[in-house]
Amino acid sequence: MPSGNARVVIIGAGFGGLEAAKALRRAAVEVIVIDRQNHHCFQPLLYQVATAALSPAEIAWPIRHILRPQRNATVLMEEVHGIDVLKRCVHTQFGDVPYDYLIIATGAMHSYFGHDDWSDYAPGLKRIEDATRVRRSILIAFERAEVVHDQDEQRRLLTFVIVGGGATGVEMAGAIADVARQTLAADFRRIDPRSARIVLVEAGPRVLPTFPQNLSDYAREILTRGGVEIKTATLVTKCDARGVDLKDGRIDAGTIIWAAGVTASPAARWLNAEADAAGRIKVGPDLSVPGYPEIFVIGDTATLTDRKGHAIPGVAPAAKQMGKYVGKLISARIAGRERRKPFHYVHLGDLATIGRRAAVVKFGRLELKGFLGWVFWSVAHIYFLIGLRNRFVVAFNWFWDYVTFQRGARLITDVPRGEDSTRGA
Amino acid sequence: MPSGNARVVIIGAGFGGLEAAKALRRAAVEVIVIDRQNHHCFQPLLYQVATAALSPAEIAWPIRHILRPQRNATVLMEEVHGIDVLKRCVHTQFGDVPYDYLIIATGAMHSYFGHDDWSDYAPGLKRIEDATRVRRSILIAFERAEVVHDQDEQRRLLTFVIVGGGATGVEMAGAIADVARQTLAADFRRIDPRSARIVLVEAGPRVLPTFPQNLSDYAREILTRGGVEIKTATLVTKCDARGVDLKDGRIDAGTIIWAAGVTASPAARWLNAEADAAGRIKVGPDLSVPGYPEIFVIGDTATLTDRKGHAIPGVAPAAKQMGKYVGKLISARIAGRERRKPFHYVHLGDLATIGRRAAVVKFGRLELKGFLGWVFWSVAHIYFLIGLRNRFVVAFNWFWDYVTFQRGARLITDVPRGEDSTRGA
Repeated sequence: MPSGNARVVIIGAGFGGLEAAKALRRAAVEVIVIDRQNHHCFQPLLYQVATAALSPAEIAWPIRHILRPQRNATVLMEEVHGIDVLKRCVHTQFGDVPYDYLIIATGAMHSYFGHDDWSDYAPGLKRIEDATRVRRSILIAFERAEVVHDQDEQRRLLTFVIVGGGATGVEMAGAIADVARQTLAADFRRIDPRSARIVLVEAGPRVLPTFPQNLSDYAREILTRGGVEIKTATLVTKCDARGVDLKDGRIDAGTIIWAAGVTASPAARWLNAEADAAGRIKVGPDLSVPGYPEIFVIGDTATLTDRKGHAIPGVAPAAKQMGKYVGKLISARIAGRERRKPFHYVHLGDLATIGRRAAVVKFGRLELKGFLGWVFWSVAHIYFLIGLRNRFVVAFNWFWDYVTFQRGARLITDVPRGEDSTRGA
Repeated sequence: MPSGNARVVIIGAGFGGLEAAKALRRAAVEVIVIDRQNHHCFQPLLYQVATAALSPAEIAWPIRHILRPQRNATVLMEEVHGIDVLKRCVHTQFGDVPYDYLIIATGAMHSYFGHDDWSDYAPGLKRIEDATRVRRSILIAFERAEVVHDQDEQRRLLTFVIVGGGATGVEMAGAIADVARQTLAADFRRIDPRSARIVLVEAGPRVLPTFPQNLSDYAREILTRGGVEIKTATLVTKCDARGVDLKDGRIDAGTIIWAAGVTASPAARWLNAEADAAGRIKVGPDLSVPGYPEIFVIGDTATLTDRKGHAIPGVAPAAKQMGKYVGKLISARIAGRERRKPFHYVHLGDLATIGRRAAVVKFGRLELKGFLGWVFWSVAHIYFLIGLRNRFVVAFNWFWDYVTFQRGARLITDVPRGEDSTRGA
């Protein structure tokens, strides 16, 4: 290493990784942030990119620009292939990066419960590319329905199935309903976009299972009123190019969106560490990997229960709190102060939009729904966005959508051959 | 046809096609607009998407949304494979579309002067996808230079060659210089983005050949001052994955951008019509194809000389004027009034930006350069954008760039395997 300072390598610049880097800004360390993308993505708003309300750049920022003022931080855009815990270095496609401390914040991917081939037909929402792919699929469905002559095929194309009734699934279903019933309503001549069928499938007994029952009921009511069919206690047994099989029958669909399960990144394999069924690494109370006090795992890649025995949820605030904790812990250790307090998670709350002018919010004792919830949700998301410009532009776009019912990013681009299931039909 | 009205089919919803459709809005016809994209793209600002200043959606609008108020117009997103001039129908991948009148407005593509394989290494700027590809290539070059250790490779990656010294080439060169010298200047730790080499190669004796000599000289001066190397009277003899061969030597480069030649779309082949060397169809004074009074060709797909013997240039105002002329001609013919006046092109002027705060403008007798030219250029482009929202957002982004030197869309997404010439190097 050029400087005599200890080197902290952070893999992944999501909510957790970035927060860890920032918490190290005054420490006498060299910070190396490695990510295979050049941008940090604000995942809570990915569904708005997927439904053409926002452009990708409005919810994504170059990692190196975020860390530009932090002189002890270097950002490297490269892909990690493995970790050598004995030699203490990270293998990437451009060579090895040695570390003194390692923070793994590689996040989660979609899990298709052992059916990885479903990912070809039912994309999820984790990266910008996923969101633009879903956007393309939704917009192409309407375009194709306008040109094909077969009525069964039109009906299939105008059927949208969302798998998973958590916050992402509910937000997608509500937003697709808005697109079909409002945004596109007057734009077609041969089909009526308002006739689109939107089905939300959830394996459990209710949508928004992490919310209180009354908010969950409210979400169901608003979605149903908006024309979303909700199927709870329903398992998906197969996804293919032309629809889904459910326990109680088949739905032919042009678009399937996966918002059901996640699995951790392959970090457990890199470390050969103990992991849970979802691939998350079991970490100690200080978020380090048992046996490796210099390796920490945070965010969706880690699994940990708090003092009350509750599992820490895979949400942005948890990742940020973990990142900050580890950053401060390493800072303290470098400065010769040992920090023994274990990580303590503070649950801030849950929130989800259900569509235009409606959201549910549970923040401590505060429960909001409807318009007030929606205002709270909007302000909170604008607040947490990075960059003043993006805050302005997103706020402006929401205002515009609100007034005109229009969405600003109805673009179909980069259609790969083979993705379009109706091509040449 | 369902209605008894004559049917006008327009292929292509660029500047010409859209203008033709709009000119038919009060005619007793059924208008069918066919495009393989769902959006109309404002090509004059593609270079701003390519250099991360604007997002794609800010310069592109859904065609069907633009024509939404025009009740006699139907938009079909499909690809045209051919035309049967005897049966009077257009072949598409979803079937045949019969016509009574046909307007071909399919625009132009890049021409690599017989070296089509160069397109793999030297993308041009015609579609949104081209612009995001170029953006990706420029941003990846800096990212890769930061991670590779070999200094020759770093130098190669930080070399940008722009082929063609017309408006697009000049605008790209100026914008890349701004990106390297300003936007990215403080974002890297191991490389100095300001050391990037930007080379503008032009086969003719001067840049901006359609402008008066003094404005051309001014552009050269501003570009050179901004650190752009200009090589006039220089031919490119080869493009490959690692650089270009020029008549006077080799330049190793990480990014090559093609702004040199264009060729018309394959419409001449579809019609088996007479075309010039660039594939443009020779049309009569009323823009119809000789022998087919019901088929018109407009914009970059047509070639025509005006009464003074000047060729009509391939620019947006020419396409719009041609579209309007043909739309009105068909309207008149349908209404039983024959319109005999031949098409007359009015040249409005030429304008090009050279970078931050500098542009050249030639509008009739008005000549502007520098800051005043730049203000004129900005106002003109905002004015011609479609949609109030986009005007606001683009104006805001330009204001923001102007004040902060930052660019809002520095995203690398959808990197195809194989495109990245350094992967695994």
